[in-house]
Amino acid sequence: MTRVRVDLNISLDGYASTVGDGPHDPFGEDWARLTAAYVGTRTFRERVLGKADGSGTTGVDDNYAAQYFEGVGAEVMGAGMFGLTDHRDDPDWRGWWGDTPPFGFTVYVLTHSEREPLEFANGTRFEFLNASPEEALLLARESAGGADVRIGGGPTTVRHYLRAGLVDSLHVAVVPVVLGRGINLWDDLRGLESGYRVTAESADSGVTHFTFEREDGS
Amino acid sequence: MTRVRVDLNISLDGYASTVGDGPHDPFGEDWARLTAAYVGTRTFRERVLGKADGSGTTGVDDNYAAQYFEGVGAEVMGAGMFGLTDHRDDPDWRGWWGDTPPFGFTVYVLTHSEREPLEFANGTRFEFLNASPEEALLLARESAGGADVRIGGGPTTVRHYLRAGLVDSLHVAVVPVVLGRGINLWDDLRGLESGYRVTAESADSGVTHFTFEREDGS
Repeated sequence: MTRVRVDLNISLDGYASTVGDGPHDPFGEDWARLTAAYVGTRTFRERVLGKADGSGTTGVDDNYAAQYFEGVGAEVMGAGMFGLTDHRDDPDWRGWWGDTPPFGFTVYVLTHSEREPLEFANGTRFEFLNASPEEALLLARESAGGADVRIGGGPTTVRHYLRAGLVDSLHVAVVPVVLGRGINLWDDLRGLESGYRVTAESADSGVTHFTFEREDGS
Repeated sequence: MTRVRVDLNISLDGYASTVGDGPHDPFGEDWARLTAAYVGTRTFRERVLGKADGSGTTGVDDNYAAQYFEGVGAEVMGAGMFGLTDHRDDPDWRGWWGDTPPFGFTVYVLTHSEREPLEFANGTRFEFLNASPEEALLLARESAGGADVRIGGGPTTVRHYLRAGLVDSLHVAVVPVVLGRGINLWDDLRGLESGYRVTAESADSGVTHFTFEREDGS
């Protein structure tokens, strides 16, 4: 059965986004600190960077990185995550991921601007929707064909689905830094844990992986 | 060498205090959820409740509970933690802890009201100081005689010492609930991790223990 899944790296104080210095540095120096353990994993190096050379960490962080890529059949992401905040007026913008975006399925991008779909040789297809998050999720469920749907981000998009009670599985990697600015995942989510089984597992990196799994299995 | 130590239970979203319904319920229903794993430990039952019957959990949560009581020679706490927010006008108020407060050393209570010191048979002594946190810490260091000084709380007092860079060891037990209200430990502490070695350890309870230890060992 399709589950709706979210994975995020957040700081100890809950920040899931970082503040940069404009279009040439949209995420800022904090982004590297927030994602260091994840981008250091063998899975990230293989699946995102295409480096199948056996480099990268194995262990707890890598196990969660591998789960991120397993069983997903479609994704929904916000316009900012695709890059439209900074590249709205660039009709040739094709996302951050180069010629082989690490998806291999249809990604629905929520936006109010009109864009033609983009196709890549590895099966990744970006469709741009002027639709509500709920409508986009229905399309993604259909497209996933029984596999899982991932809400890719950014945090504002994720928070919408969490508040609406539409997420079945939430994995947050809590990185032991205090950022103090950005978008806070937890704002206005009091009682989120209700209805979920919550587990925690720490890695040697100092990152702790919290997982919220819907108890009814739906 | 004396270290200045802090131990707190906080929610996933960083709240170290809970909101109650007035003097008869100063902490509210969230307090029990925030402290459930800690008060369930064998150490808490022995050291705070005086129940040396072998009941209570052992394991990761209990290991940290035991460390809380080890090697401390003096404490500083805020007026609210002693109960003066609700009992300021009660000259007979002797704290929350009954006849055997679980200290056994001098506790310096920061307050602007005049109170005579309180002595207990188990060696606990409360002294009430109209002084700055820094002055109180100097007195506590002297009183500790080479043992550690604990900043007992509440979170506002703890945050003052953290912002001033006066804490050598911070242990936070992150409880997997989202509270959304209270006093947030992390506010205005961007970059706190700098100069500390940060480690994390998860318990089966779902609680994760983050420890910040000053790297220079001072």
